[in-house]
Amino acid sequence: MSDDLAADFAFDVFARACQSRGTLEHVTGRWGGLTLGALHEGSFRFNELRRRVVGVSEKMLSQTLHALERDGLVHREAQPTNPPRVDYTLTPLGQEVAERLVGLFELVEGRMPQVISARERYDAAREAARLTP
Amino acid sequence: MSDDLAADFAFDVFARACQSRGTLEHVTGRWGGLTLGALHEGSFRFNELRRRVVGVSEKMLSQTLHALERDGLVHREAQPTNPPRVDYTLTPLGQEVAERLVGLFELVEGRMPQVISARERYDAAREAARLTP
Repeated sequence: MSDDLAADFAFDVFARACQSRGTLEHVTGRWGGLTLGALHEGSFRFNELRRRVVGVSEKMLSQTLHALERDGLVHREAQPTNPPRVDYTLTPLGQEVAERLVGLFELVEGRMPQVISARERYDAAREAARLTP
Repeated sequence: MSDDLAADFAFDVFARACQSRGTLEHVTGRWGGLTLGALHEGSFRFNELRRRVVGVSEKMLSQTLHALERDGLVHREAQPTNPPRVDYTLTPLGQEVAERLVGLFELVEGRMPQVISARERYDAAREAARLTP
């Protein structure tokens, strides 16, 4: 069996206890996804990232970055300056994941006119059903 | 300006109030993502889907399916049988989104050996820092 096949058998996001579910949640969670998407644009310092990921709190961004760093997706580099300066970048693995994520973001953004039309049709059908005696 | 460009300007998942953030959360949320991933395999009835998306409650699956149906990603078809039978399938739009998602799942599953090594290195470095006087 090739290594690739072994990996396919070993990890399954559909399995309740599989570790890949946790990583998937770090990657696709509200703040994890946007943080990886932002870092796909380049290197950021903490406060720059906080401005880019609009709406994230300092605490949530800090937790998000730690989880992504621990999973090997984000690299944290403290510069030996005074005051110390910390830069966050994607690792090669983070880059791979971020590329897929950004593709998904762009697809969702590009399809929003269709999504909004679908919502209007759905709501109108529900309203019509409600009014039918 | 082409329609594509207009859409690019109109929707931005990084903007706090943008409707695309809500749809992205339906798509990448814990149960939304796995539900779309399951339906990428074919048509499912409610209880089949509940078994495939291991760990989801009846209530959460029902809410998830309604949100995805309202966004135009999932099609719900009630068969005129007795008892009534309801089938869930992806719409063409849902199919597009699910393809990207499944690509992301497979990437994460395939890279879990690297993620687990990264976690071990991270935890060992934290432990070493803790023990250094």
